[in-house]
Amino acid sequence: MSAEGLEALLVTDLASIRWLTGFSGSNAKLLLAGGTAVLFTDFRYQEQVRQETSGIATVILKDTLATTLASGPWKLGDRMALEADQVNWHEMRQLSEKLANRELVPVTAFFDEFRELKHVEELERMRRAVAISELVLEAVIGMIGPEVTEIDIAAEISYRHRKLGAEKDSFDPIVAGGIRAAMPHARPTASKFEPGTLIVIDMGCLVDGYASDQTRTIAFGKVSEEQRKVYRIVQQAQQLGIDFARAGISARDLDAEVRNFIAAEGYGEAFGHGLGHGVGIEVHEAPRVGTAATGTLREGTVFTIEPGIYLPGRFGVRIEDMVVLGPDGAEPLQRFTKELIEL
Amino acid sequence: MSAEGLEALLVTDLASIRWLTGFSGSNAKLLLAGGTAVLFTDFRYQEQVRQETSGIATVILKDTLATTLASGPWKLGDRMALEADQVNWHEMRQLSEKLANRELVPVTAFFDEFRELKHVEELERMRRAVAISELVLEAVIGMIGPEVTEIDIAAEISYRHRKLGAEKDSFDPIVAGGIRAAMPHARPTASKFEPGTLIVIDMGCLVDGYASDQTRTIAFGKVSEEQRKVYRIVQQAQQLGIDFARAGISARDLDAEVRNFIAAEGYGEAFGHGLGHGVGIEVHEAPRVGTAATGTLREGTVFTIEPGIYLPGRFGVRIEDMVVLGPDGAEPLQRFTKELIEL
Repeated sequence: MSAEGLEALLVTDLASIRWLTGFSGSNAKLLLAGGTAVLFTDFRYQEQVRQETSGIATVILKDTLATTLASGPWKLGDRMALEADQVNWHEMRQLSEKLANRELVPVTAFFDEFRELKHVEELERMRRAVAISELVLEAVIGMIGPEVTEIDIAAEISYRHRKLGAEKDSFDPIVAGGIRAAMPHARPTASKFEPGTLIVIDMGCLVDGYASDQTRTIAFGKVSEEQRKVYRIVQQAQQLGIDFARAGISARDLDAEVRNFIAAEGYGEAFGHGLGHGVGIEVHEAPRVGTAATGTLREGTVFTIEPGIYLPGRFGVRIEDMVVLGPDGAEPLQRFTKELIEL
Repeated sequence: MSAEGLEALLVTDLASIRWLTGFSGSNAKLLLAGGTAVLFTDFRYQEQVRQETSGIATVILKDTLATTLASGPWKLGDRMALEADQVNWHEMRQLSEKLANRELVPVTAFFDEFRELKHVEELERMRRAVAISELVLEAVIGMIGPEVTEIDIAAEISYRHRKLGAEKDSFDPIVAGGIRAAMPHARPTASKFEPGTLIVIDMGCLVDGYASDQTRTIAFGKVSEEQRKVYRIVQQAQQLGIDFARAGISARDLDAEVRNFIAAEGYGEAFGHGLGHGVGIEVHEAPRVGTAATGTLREGTVFTIEPGIYLPGRFGVRIEDMVVLGPDGAEPLQRFTKELIEL
């Protein structure tokens, strides 16, 4: 903050607040000012905030935050920074009105560069999340059959994540068979799996607040030669991404390396999303690894490598691991086979 | 919009976009301008948007929204409204820069008054969500025992919601025994249930995009006379809320009626949250029913009535139904007994 000349910063991003304080409630603002931190939340979290935090002053809001900030003994300085990408325009206007004699300074992605570099303990939590989710993946693959629906498998994933010790899913599981696998973000349906189709399973869980994220595509019954070919291309593309990733290169170059490979194989139009995204307290966080990425990949960063080929109305394939960048390149956190499983 | 003198409105609230168009993806903006609607989303939802919407032009974004809006053939008018409570300051600044010759007009809670009044089909979906969730509640109460944990029950709730046909939970289930029941928003833990304690179970699911929300507090084993007394007060308070609720009264008066009753019984400080909230596409939406509420309750509105008494370090009780306001007052959507169940 002092590097940016900021006297005070109001943190409004819940994930950053959790990262900074440990507090995981759904309503929180954190004021960093004059070398101290003050956490604002509401009555519902009075107990939880005591359990989850230490050494941070807490205020249970009785009024709006703007009114509370304007009337309290806080050291807001003359220029208070706001996370512009994490505060809505209405809140900003309210603060601006109540704190009329102060300048509000917009900052964006303020904590990203710090949150990107994982501590050992954070990595350990993600490894545990990965381990749980891989056990669950193995179990649910064994349950797929002609009388089973996508929703059945999704329900099992969520259930088993919790039963094995995860807090919950890190996102709603994607279980998409047949033509639905051509939708990168398909929602599970009551459709039964049909023999001769590919099934995309994209899933993850949270352990002590940290996320995992993994995708595998499996064959139910005998699939066509074209489906096998596309699978092999995605498998090679994903391995290429792992091999090419290293600290010091730009995120955009990594994306381009994999994207060019897929394009050279003739499927450039069918890979429309970014190659990957950071994972941590949020299952999607910095760094972004895509065509519009601007950053350089750094040692200690955890992100996904997840190329896909989607042929609308026909089928889709995606393979995804999380990797951590070490001194010697990218180490995948997942161990689950990426050879085509044929049920 | 014409009543407000607005030529164009950019809708950024995903729930309102779903309500207006049926599209349920996680990235969407909707431009309402010149009598037409244009939906902006990204590649991942190319297929889904076709399946979920009809009669709406769709644009798959290749660039930022601000750039796309600035360069396209859209009729933005001279004054384009933005949902100030649903757009972040950074996005607003980007739009403002790219659309430099236009005035951006902040509107707040723009669709609330429309979304509050439920159509028959919306109510029907919520009734189905309630019915599923009540079956699940009955099943999981039967599973509580001394070797069972809060997480076990939470996992069963999520699992059974999906297996019975819900899309998913409408929020993470709260299963809180003993002193954790004194936290209104407790997260399920690996703690086993202890005899002689109260357990708060707050749960709901989504059916065709619409939410349910319900809380019951049950006794595991024999509970103290004080716990019974507090239970009776909350039960009476909740019934008072249902009896008092009717179209035409202010939401604040309804909250006050119940709050005053609890205060008169000596537990005013222990009921720190609002009496209820609207339910629909979002599990928390307008109207708010609390001490700071400003609106009048209207016929056709669906909201919760959920008083609670929380005694930190000791125990807690909450009882919650959804009600729909009809011509003759409030009809609870839930049927599940509110007499104290003693396991």
